[in-house]
Amino acid sequence: MSAITSEDSILAIIDRHFPSEHPRLVLGRGDDCCVLATGEALAVSTDLFMEDVHFRRSYFTPEDIGWKALAVNVSDLAAAGAHPAGFSLGLALPRDASTELVDGLFAGMAELAGPLSLPLTGGDLSVADRLHLCVTVFGDITPATSLRRRNASPGDLIFLGGRIGLARVGLKVLEAQGRQAMAVYPEACAAHLRPEPRLRDGMRLGALQAQQDGRISLMDVSDGLARDLPRLLGPLGADLTLPAPHPECLSWAASQVTDSREAAELALKNCWLGGEDYAVVGTCEPRLAATVMTLIPDGAVLGRVTDDGVLRWNGHTASVEGFDHFAS
Amino acid sequence: MSAITSEDSILAIIDRHFPSEHPRLVLGRGDDCCVLATGEALAVSTDLFMEDVHFRRSYFTPEDIGWKALAVNVSDLAAAGAHPAGFSLGLALPRDASTELVDGLFAGMAELAGPLSLPLTGGDLSVADRLHLCVTVFGDITPATSLRRRNASPGDLIFLGGRIGLARVGLKVLEAQGRQAMAVYPEACAAHLRPEPRLRDGMRLGALQAQQDGRISLMDVSDGLARDLPRLLGPLGADLTLPAPHPECLSWAASQVTDSREAAELALKNCWLGGEDYAVVGTCEPRLAATVMTLIPDGAVLGRVTDDGVLRWNGHTASVEGFDHFAS
Repeated sequence: MSAITSEDSILAIIDRHFPSEHPRLVLGRGDDCCVLATGEALAVSTDLFMEDVHFRRSYFTPEDIGWKALAVNVSDLAAAGAHPAGFSLGLALPRDASTELVDGLFAGMAELAGPLSLPLTGGDLSVADRLHLCVTVFGDITPATSLRRRNASPGDLIFLGGRIGLARVGLKVLEAQGRQAMAVYPEACAAHLRPEPRLRDGMRLGALQAQQDGRISLMDVSDGLARDLPRLLGPLGADLTLPAPHPECLSWAASQVTDSREAAELALKNCWLGGEDYAVVGTCEPRLAATVMTLIPDGAVLGRVTDDGVLRWNGHTASVEGFDHFAS
Repeated sequence: MSAITSEDSILAIIDRHFPSEHPRLVLGRGDDCCVLATGEALAVSTDLFMEDVHFRRSYFTPEDIGWKALAVNVSDLAAAGAHPAGFSLGLALPRDASTELVDGLFAGMAELAGPLSLPLTGGDLSVADRLHLCVTVFGDITPATSLRRRNASPGDLIFLGGRIGLARVGLKVLEAQGRQAMAVYPEACAAHLRPEPRLRDGMRLGALQAQQDGRISLMDVSDGLARDLPRLLGPLGADLTLPAPHPECLSWAASQVTDSREAAELALKNCWLGGEDYAVVGTCEPRLAATVMTLIPDGAVLGRVTDDGVLRWNGHTASVEGFDHFAS
């Protein structure tokens, strides 16, 4: 492992993974500002990704950290129906950061950014006690394609794109066993370490909303359905049937409790609580339902929006649960 | 002091200082992305502002921290010739953060953002060992008005907008004496705690560049002329006469050394080394010199660009000095 000895050595690593020249950049990195060519409007989202809060270096490789720091932001673009246009990075490194760590971080980011042709528009470097990343992403959008929350009516379809509950199992087994958990729970660990933003879902649904002048809502499931559905639906309620849990969620549940009925129930509850799946959940008016489900080939119908402010799932009546950094 | 008990209580403070509705926001905060109305291009800059790296809570008030975290970013817009359009914030709070701290932070930001009509486009909250802020600013710009570095030729005028050396004295006396230094060095402390971004200079010079199809370069002086001039000029050199040091820089120098000639020299060297002044330094072709100096009424002519790659200031030949977080 070789130590970082200057900011210039970090900038050289960045330039290797993210060339400053890019068709979208009127002016590339290295000046006071980067200048990004824009259209009518830009979707913007910022997420922190912080060591020992959002990830642990004991079981995230540097490449995983770089991937996920960017992926959780790109997931917000997906939820808005935006087309990825660029991102900026605030990176605080521990003083003992190695060249290998920094190179891995940017390699992981480039692995996700490359196929999206997503330029790095610049950022800032500093030192800190732990590894902290702050990513801001930009996406092309128009008012007509912009998907938002709280745009549902009773009777609308509720749909899901992506898995729920898998990343939560990944977190639990990685916390308990470290990376050796990957041998038994490969997909759950991958779901936690390398979430795949559902960009195609968002872009297709945004285009549909604009073409059909349709009522669609969408958000990404970052904190679990239990906490995120109230954010999507506001004062409305829902009648839901969750999809069958992933086999790795079932086998994890079976490892936790001996009774098989209890295990099935635990697996289902795990899907409800979820967290960090970066699936998308949305609603659409009934006339669009068939088209929406065609646009999300691996999607699932979850149920219908109701007007009574209650969330019902598989016979349960839900209380809102989730995660708050500042709750005591 | 009352403790923060939930993210919602922080969001309520933010909403009080930064309403989510704003003419520039197609979609305000509270969704997966904010949507910002844009023109042809957007200037983007990100800066970290981190406790015990960039500021100390022992002598920065919460309002000072909020102001400066945003000001150092807005200064990058000034250097690009951009018109401020919005900003996003990644905020990591220590677990013992009080309501007063959070309220003060956003009050300080709003003090700067309000007169600029700068909306907060969103961001993210987390916990950390120390107070960390990561600001990304957006500014309206066009390729024609965009000011950049490395756009000078030998013979061009070198000019300065703002003070140099004053913030460095502020840092030294605040580090040595804490806030009681403000009694003796009020302007130096203010220069360090509350830098004023030179937005008007940048916007005027950007417009001039576009109108006259002129050769202008500009950057903000964040690390001192000694380190920043080579970034502005690239392989070129400069013959410079620094402006007379500010009276507080002179009295600080006199407090450091007894010999008066040595003190004068120290005060001048302090201007050269500078750091965190957030002045702007630039160059322009000779035909624009008179107009440029009219556009910056409190500006100073520093000298001329040369072709020999050497920086000469007041009889000295400079070595490049400055600050590197990662140098050992």
